[in-house]
Amino acid sequence: MKWYAVASLLTILTSSQGILTTLSQSNGGYKYDYATVPFLAEVFKLLVSSVLLWRELQKSPPPKMTTEWKSVRLYPIPSIIYLIHNNVQFATLTYVDTSTYQIMGNLKIVTTAILFRLFLRRKLSNLQWMAIVLLAVGTTTSQAKGCGEASCHSLFSFPMEGYMLGVLSACLSALAGVYTEFLMKKNNDSLYWQNVQLYTFGAIFNMARLLLDDFRGGFEKGPWWQRLLSGYSITTWMVVLNLGSTGLLVSWLMKYADNIVKVYSTSMAMLLTMVLSVFLFNFRPTLQLFLGIIVCMMSLHMYFAPPNMLVDLPLTVKAAPESIIEVSVDRRTDS
Amino acid sequence: MKWYAVASLLTILTSSQGILTTLSQSNGGYKYDYATVPFLAEVFKLLVSSVLLWRELQKSPPPKMTTEWKSVRLYPIPSIIYLIHNNVQFATLTYVDTSTYQIMGNLKIVTTAILFRLFLRRKLSNLQWMAIVLLAVGTTTSQAKGCGEASCHSLFSFPMEGYMLGVLSACLSALAGVYTEFLMKKNNDSLYWQNVQLYTFGAIFNMARLLLDDFRGGFEKGPWWQRLLSGYSITTWMVVLNLGSTGLLVSWLMKYADNIVKVYSTSMAMLLTMVLSVFLFNFRPTLQLFLGIIVCMMSLHMYFAPPNMLVDLPLTVKAAPESIIEVSVDRRTDS
Repeated sequence: MKWYAVASLLTILTSSQGILTTLSQSNGGYKYDYATVPFLAEVFKLLVSSVLLWRELQKSPPPKMTTEWKSVRLYPIPSIIYLIHNNVQFATLTYVDTSTYQIMGNLKIVTTAILFRLFLRRKLSNLQWMAIVLLAVGTTTSQAKGCGEASCHSLFSFPMEGYMLGVLSACLSALAGVYTEFLMKKNNDSLYWQNVQLYTFGAIFNMARLLLDDFRGGFEKGPWWQRLLSGYSITTWMVVLNLGSTGLLVSWLMKYADNIVKVYSTSMAMLLTMVLSVFLFNFRPTLQLFLGIIVCMMSLHMYFAPPNMLVDLPLTVKAAPESIIEVSVDRRTDS
Repeated sequence: MKWYAVASLLTILTSSQGILTTLSQSNGGYKYDYATVPFLAEVFKLLVSSVLLWRELQKSPPPKMTTEWKSVRLYPIPSIIYLIHNNVQFATLTYVDTSTYQIMGNLKIVTTAILFRLFLRRKLSNLQWMAIVLLAVGTTTSQAKGCGEASCHSLFSFPMEGYMLGVLSACLSALAGVYTEFLMKKNNDSLYWQNVQLYTFGAIFNMARLLLDDFRGGFEKGPWWQRLLSGYSITTWMVVLNLGSTGLLVSWLMKYADNIVKVYSTSMAMLLTMVLSVFLFNFRPTLQLFLGIIVCMMSLHMYFAPPNMLVDLPLTVKAAPESIIEVSVDRRTDS
């Protein structure tokens, strides 16, 4: 499979995720406990990866699997970073409103590129850096509500702590992505074996989170395993399968493509969701959405198009064949 | 003088123009007849150009001057296009509101590039085309007011004629610019001689417009020469001198640089005016302004930076010297 096919599929599924989640609501609220969805998605990913690994084990040569503790112990780290990230996110939202938080979320695009450069030592051209900044600006443009609404007055008027935590949140989110890419690429172990490790810890950490919520809430709503599946509709199950599938695609991209591809994929999904919402939920299309889409499309082209498609080749390239011909003529005169 | 120094000066003066015009108002209105300002600016440009031409005529070799009617008759054309443009602008504003008209004005950036390509046959790289689109998107972003205000509901809700006329207006404005560039570059006549021809017709057409306004208004406010200079303050004179100076700079750019440089210069001026307004007139800075500025800066860099600064040089360039060496080795074996 080509990376751009996987990336396109990820865009479509990520976009469906938002729409399915909206459709799974009844009367503006959830009949089921939304916190159980990520846990079930982890279990789904673990099951799929286990089956695929088992099938790989039947074949020869057997898949490459590093089972030393020195390697395995690295796999809970993404889950730990996400756990910290969730808490920082929660803390941020006590200082700023959700729309400001959403706007700040676009910083993740830039922090991912920075950590990608620093930790994975991947070099980006100036044009690619500009494309990254434009992607962040484009997504922000499409989300910016503009003046007249409360968000305009208040965007720069929250306590400083809110913005600091927003930046921290963007860094943690980027770190989790970049670390996962490092993990998936550090050896040529079977993708399914790496997934099994990743999702085992993922399921455990999600379970721990559900339990922690129960303790915090004093078991008012009963233990989490009683809430699991209660109020689940077909749409809820689709949300679970969809979330699980996007996770599997991201994992594939981390091994065979990179974090920047993932960032583009999810940013495009955000725009696609907004466009689909115009048709499905009668959202009013804004000029900002239109402008944001143009900026993001330009950014996509700038980042991924081959350089010679973007700029005229420098003169040296054209001059090269001529100099070879000249030398050949010289040779003929010589002999 | 380097073109970027002239372009920067044009940005500063164009930006001052908006601020000076605002400062020249008293109690939200003009004490003087604003229509007399462009006429006096034309006279100022004509005087300056005449003096400079006269000085050139004292020197040897004398300046190159084509005085045939075949050449001179081309110089009123820009004025005629501007006259049509003014009327189309007036007609457009009967269909759409001023903020929608202002937003549509950014189309001029794209139409200028298209006519620049078609009529002047100047080739732009894909990256430069993208930069042009981004410049238009960036300026529009900075101006878009967003939802919550009336403009959001109504942006796409005016009669079709309004949008058609807006596009026509953008085309005429671009045509005037591109035609002037053609005129200035078609021979190596003295810039000052070309200016004298351009501004003589400019002054005549502006005078005709003032007279036409008088006829339309039934001479209620008296003939235009009586209104000329009445209510003029020091600031009004500065507006005139400033407008005249920007005209002279544009003329220089048309001869020694091009329309795209002018478009960047005036777009940057628009952004500079908005930033200065935040400090001078306590305008509220919006997130949109900030985003628009980033997009325009990226566009500027994309358009003017040398390609090898933006992208990594393609492999062929590095390979070229090697192939030359190989051939040389071949030759040595031969002889």
